[in-house]
Amino acid sequence: MIRVGIFGYGNLGKGVECAIAKNSDMELVGVFTRRDPSSVQVHTAGVPVYHEDALKDMANDIDVLVLCGGSATDLPEQTPKYAVMYNVVDSFDTHARIPEHFANVDEAAKKAGKTCVISCGWDPGMFSLNRLYANCILPDGKDYTFWGKGVSQGHSDAVRRIDGVKDCRQYTIPVDAAMQAVREGKQPEFTTREKHTRECFVVAEEGADLARIESEIKNMPNYFADYDTTVHFITEEEMQRDHSGLPHGGSVIRTGVTGFHDENTHVVEYNIKLDSNPEFTGSVIVAYVRAVYRMNQEGQNGCKTVFDIAPAYLSPLSGEEIRAHLL
Amino acid sequence: MIRVGIFGYGNLGKGVECAIAKNSDMELVGVFTRRDPSSVQVHTAGVPVYHEDALKDMANDIDVLVLCGGSATDLPEQTPKYAVMYNVVDSFDTHARIPEHFANVDEAAKKAGKTCVISCGWDPGMFSLNRLYANCILPDGKDYTFWGKGVSQGHSDAVRRIDGVKDCRQYTIPVDAAMQAVREGKQPEFTTREKHTRECFVVAEEGADLARIESEIKNMPNYFADYDTTVHFITEEEMQRDHSGLPHGGSVIRTGVTGFHDENTHVVEYNIKLDSNPEFTGSVIVAYVRAVYRMNQEGQNGCKTVFDIAPAYLSPLSGEEIRAHLL
Repeated sequence: MIRVGIFGYGNLGKGVECAIAKNSDMELVGVFTRRDPSSVQVHTAGVPVYHEDALKDMANDIDVLVLCGGSATDLPEQTPKYAVMYNVVDSFDTHARIPEHFANVDEAAKKAGKTCVISCGWDPGMFSLNRLYANCILPDGKDYTFWGKGVSQGHSDAVRRIDGVKDCRQYTIPVDAAMQAVREGKQPEFTTREKHTRECFVVAEEGADLARIESEIKNMPNYFADYDTTVHFITEEEMQRDHSGLPHGGSVIRTGVTGFHDENTHVVEYNIKLDSNPEFTGSVIVAYVRAVYRMNQEGQNGCKTVFDIAPAYLSPLSGEEIRAHLL
Repeated sequence: MIRVGIFGYGNLGKGVECAIAKNSDMELVGVFTRRDPSSVQVHTAGVPVYHEDALKDMANDIDVLVLCGGSATDLPEQTPKYAVMYNVVDSFDTHARIPEHFANVDEAAKKAGKTCVISCGWDPGMFSLNRLYANCILPDGKDYTFWGKGVSQGHSDAVRRIDGVKDCRQYTIPVDAAMQAVREGKQPEFTTREKHTRECFVVAEEGADLARIESEIKNMPNYFADYDTTVHFITEEEMQRDHSGLPHGGSVIRTGVTGFHDENTHVVEYNIKLDSNPEFTGSVIVAYVRAVYRMNQEGQNGCKTVFDIAPAYLSPLSGEEIRAHLL
C-alpha cells in the first residue's frame, strides 16, 4: 500500500481524496490543514485530520504527500519546504513561474533523495503531454488549445470583486466554428475573441445598478475586454440550483503536414469533458503519486514533470500486463 | 545528427523517409532491401540503397535502424536478428504475439547493449498510450477504440483473393451513433456490427459473376460476416482516381466516474484523422528513433515499448525548453 497524505482540504484536496478511494493500492493516512483540525470533517471514515505542524514528525508514516494549496502564494513556499522530507506532488499552474518553481523543488528534492512532480493535472498536465507528443510526431504543424465549456475560478472571482456583486459563476466557452476550422487542417490564426466566449451568471445585491455591473464586467481588462461576454443576472436560488458544479474540459489540437511535398495533412486531437474539474485533477495527481513512489524506490530523485515520467509508472499493472492488455 | 537506416522500402519505409526529412537532427544514411538494390529508387537525393547483406558490416555507420517489414513473418525474425547489432525500432502489430516478440527482442538487445522499441505507430502506439493514461486516471471506467474512416490493407487483400476480383479497396467506418453513445458516458455494450461498418470498392474481371463476388465478400468469416458491408463495383480508372490514397484514423475514448457516490462522469477522447496512414506511422516511429538513440547513450538497454519511454525523450528540445513552452 502506498501511504498518501493530503495537505490542504479545499475542492482539490477532496478530489484527491475520492481518487485515492478508487485505487486499491493506496491509503489515505491523513489530511493536513492550516485551520483548526477539529473544524475539518473528512469524507473517508477513520482518516485523522492534523494541523500542518504535525508534518514535521511524520516522514516515516507517509510515502507521498499531495500539496493542494494555491499556486499564487502557497505552493511556491510549500513544495520546496516539504520536498526535503517527503516525496511530493503538486498542481502548480502559474505557467510563467514554472522554471523557477522547478529549480527550487529540484534542489530541495535532490538534496534529500526525494522525488517530486510539479504542475500535475490537466493543464498543465494531460494537455501538456498531448502538446508534446503531437509536436514530436508532427514537427511541421501548429498547436491549438481550447478551454471549456467550464467554470473559470479566476474569472468568477474577478467579477465577485465588483461593487454590488454578491456571487458569480463564469463559464469559458470555446467557439465551435474556430474548432471546426482547426480540424480542417488549414492552420488558421485567431484573435482572442475568435477562440472563446465568456458567459457570466451574476447574483447582484439588492438595488445594485445592473447596467453598471454589466459594463464593468464587459470592459474589465485582461479578463473580459478581449472577449464577447454575455452577462445574466440570476437569483441566489438559481445560482445554487443551476451552477453549483465545477464542470470543465477542453481540447488540444495539432495539425501538421507530411510528405515530400507537404501534400498530406494530419489532425491529432485530445478532448476532455469533465463533470468535476477538481475530481479529475485529483485523479491525474493520484496516478502520478504512484509514479513518484516507484521512481523514488528506484532512486530516481529530484523534480519531475509529466514529461519526465514513463507512462508505465502510472499503472498498478505490471509491464507484462499492460503489454498484453493495453498495447 | 542521428544517423538512421531504413530496412524495407514499401509504404512504411517511404513514410519513415519523409518523416526523417522533417527532423533536422536526423539524417538518412541508407535504405536496405532484400530486392536488387539497383531496382529501388529512393526519394531523398544522395541516399544509397544497399542489399540487406550490407547490414552485417554497417554497425558503426548507423545509430538507429528502422525495420519496415511486415508483422506476419518479417519482423519476428528481423527484429531479434538486428537487435544484436543495432538500436532498432519496429512497428510489430500482431497484438497476440507481442509478449513473445518482446521477450525475443529484449534478450537480444540486452546481450548486445542495444536499445529497441517494438510496436511503434498509432495502434499499437499512440492509441495504446492513450488507453494507458486514461485507464490510470480513471480506474473506474470503460475503454472504447474506434477505427476509421480508413483503408484496411488486410481486408482489401482478403477481397483481392476472391476469384474474379482484380482489385479492392476496403474502408472501415466507425458508426457515429455508437461514438455518440460512448461520449454520453453511459458505458454501452456493443456487438461488432454496432461499432463499425465496412465498405468495399471492387474492380472485377470482365465477365465475372458480380452477385457471387458480393456474396462471398459479405459472408467471409472474421473479415466481413459480422459487419454490415456495402460493396461497390467500379472501374480501374475510378479506383486509380478516387482510391489511391491510404487515409486512416480513429478514436480512443474512455469514460469513467469519480466522486464519493460515483456522481461525476468524465470523458477522455483521443482522435486522429490522417491523410496518409504510413506517413503518420513513420512520423511516430521517427520520434521514437530519437528516444532510442538517447536512451542507448544513457545505457538504458533492452526492449521497450511506448509505455516505457518518458515523453521528454521524443523531443529535440531540452527539458528547460519543453517546460517553458509546452507545459
